[in-house]
Amino acid sequence: MDRHGAPVIDGLQYSNWSREIFEQMRAGGVDCVHVTIVYWETTIETINNITEWHKLFRIHQDLIMPVRYAEDVNRARESNRTGIVFGFQNCSPIDNDVGLVEIFHQLGIRFMQLSYNNQSPLATGCYETVDPGITRFGKQVIAEMNRVGMTVDMSHSSERSTLDAIDISQRPIAITHANPAFFRQALRNKSDAVLRALADSGGMLGFSVYPFHLKDGPHCKLTDFCEMVATTADIMGIDNLGLGTDLCQNQPTSVLTWMRSGRWSLEMDFGEGSADDSDWPAQPAWFRSNLDFRNISEGLTRQGFSNDEVDKIMGGNWFRFYNRSFTAHES
Amino acid sequence: MDRHGAPVIDGLQYSNWSREIFEQMRAGGVDCVHVTIVYWETTIETINNITEWHKLFRIHQDLIMPVRYAEDVNRARESNRTGIVFGFQNCSPIDNDVGLVEIFHQLGIRFMQLSYNNQSPLATGCYETVDPGITRFGKQVIAEMNRVGMTVDMSHSSERSTLDAIDISQRPIAITHANPAFFRQALRNKSDAVLRALADSGGMLGFSVYPFHLKDGPHCKLTDFCEMVATTADIMGIDNLGLGTDLCQNQPTSVLTWMRSGRWSLEMDFGEGSADDSDWPAQPAWFRSNLDFRNISEGLTRQGFSNDEVDKIMGGNWFRFYNRSFTAHES
Repeated sequence: MDRHGAPVIDGLQYSNWSREIFEQMRAGGVDCVHVTIVYWETTIETINNITEWHKLFRIHQDLIMPVRYAEDVNRARESNRTGIVFGFQNCSPIDNDVGLVEIFHQLGIRFMQLSYNNQSPLATGCYETVDPGITRFGKQVIAEMNRVGMTVDMSHSSERSTLDAIDISQRPIAITHANPAFFRQALRNKSDAVLRALADSGGMLGFSVYPFHLKDGPHCKLTDFCEMVATTADIMGIDNLGLGTDLCQNQPTSVLTWMRSGRWSLEMDFGEGSADDSDWPAQPAWFRSNLDFRNISEGLTRQGFSNDEVDKIMGGNWFRFYNRSFTAHES
Repeated sequence: MDRHGAPVIDGLQYSNWSREIFEQMRAGGVDCVHVTIVYWETTIETINNITEWHKLFRIHQDLIMPVRYAEDVNRARESNRTGIVFGFQNCSPIDNDVGLVEIFHQLGIRFMQLSYNNQSPLATGCYETVDPGITRFGKQVIAEMNRVGMTVDMSHSSERSTLDAIDISQRPIAITHANPAFFRQALRNKSDAVLRALADSGGMLGFSVYPFHLKDGPHCKLTDFCEMVATTADIMGIDNLGLGTDLCQNQPTSVLTWMRSGRWSLEMDFGEGSADDSDWPAQPAWFRSNLDFRNISEGLTRQGFSNDEVDKIMGGNWFRFYNRSFTAHES
């Protein structure tokens, strides 16, 4: 892939990391990936997960490198490696301690979801029945995330909490991986109201290729996906769009169970699936691995986007967002 | 104090524990106290707090002993000691792990509040603006508490969450330390609707002597307090009432700050106080220490309660509640 104008950045992946996958990232021309470090882990388990990544960085230093600030993405491109940005899909690592926001920023965390499907001490998840919005603690944490340069991610949060977060946060927030609800009605997908408020505040939406977020699931056509991008651009403008594929390569079912049920339920929670459809969904044919980003960029071109617009969606917008989001605000 | 008919049980204290206080418990005729182990502590910090209590049990074994089941209160009385029941004022120790409910029951925890002032992953606290009720995780935890024999305590929770908990829990719940809102309008005090639902379900209310829960605060008269008990008995009946004094003897201001702000806020949260009234409130003259339970029982007699009724309020009701609440339900 030759996108000399802008880097290719994926707004979210959670794969069973291996040399094979990192080699696919290189072959697929992926310059940077925001990787999930945590779903339900405790503070100490989170630190263990970070040290596991430090081992990966040592072993595969010819293929990957940590990204703490936007300029690190340039260093990754210059050295022909893929940059890795850390993020939490949940607030479990900070427990009840606002002071841990700064600690984890120092450890390289750049995104944190305020809730993951369920109610958290900060915000409401998209599978709860009632959504009271951002809590007392949530307001404290958002202010601290704004100060240190950690981006609020509301991908798995519900409507009111998301609108509240957009309103309360002094810096643009992100929905790193979700699609518009007009494309598929799903609790995880976002209403037009959220899309508009997100764009108006300078926030980012990362389009997901996870089948439960797609029209027709695994059978979704690339043309339908690219048409959705075009319609979303009509709503949000071109500068607030990126990818957040939610690619989960080579993960066993046990990991899906962990994502869905953590330790919070004694029964299986099927999340976006069901008892009859409880395993990983099949990926659409046009996006099965990190080798397939070219399919999306070519599809966007065929959809009628200009080269400049395709560059923005494939990573240029995320790069600008990183550039203004990861450094501390003067206080 | 000679209450041969029923034990004297206090439904909640959190003091700066010392031999002096345990001696006052004995001199005051207190047979059992539910003590707070946790406000905002993590799982490991909670275990540390429990091991600190194990040290107290060894050092002061002539004065105190652990109570795990109701019959232990009888053993305490027979050996002229005060029984100690463990409870959490918050769900922070179980983190996002429903499996920790059984672990902590095995470690002797018999009460857990589902939320403390703020929104928790389980329920809403009384200082939040919006109260969505019991969450998905909350329902799982209540079921597990019901199974193992750990009592749901909603003292610091808000209205809808409390009514939900009463409705969802298969076993009676407790409000270990709060007063009716008709006595003093305070976010911590409880509406008539909550009092009625609590009584209808066989739950317990422990009357608080913490000044912020009292009419006229530190200047509250014993007669006013006893009149409140009588009015509450008209609403709830006599069998669902006990004491939960919320006595916090000899605690420094730093502990009040910890209770109010934990680690969740970078600013001081004044809780029931204010910037101008930020320290521990003065206790009413008729209840300053564990020596003063006799004042309450005498006041209740003067209020017109029979000896049998006074016995129930002073601890008989808590004893019966312990007897049906702390053992596992057959599943």
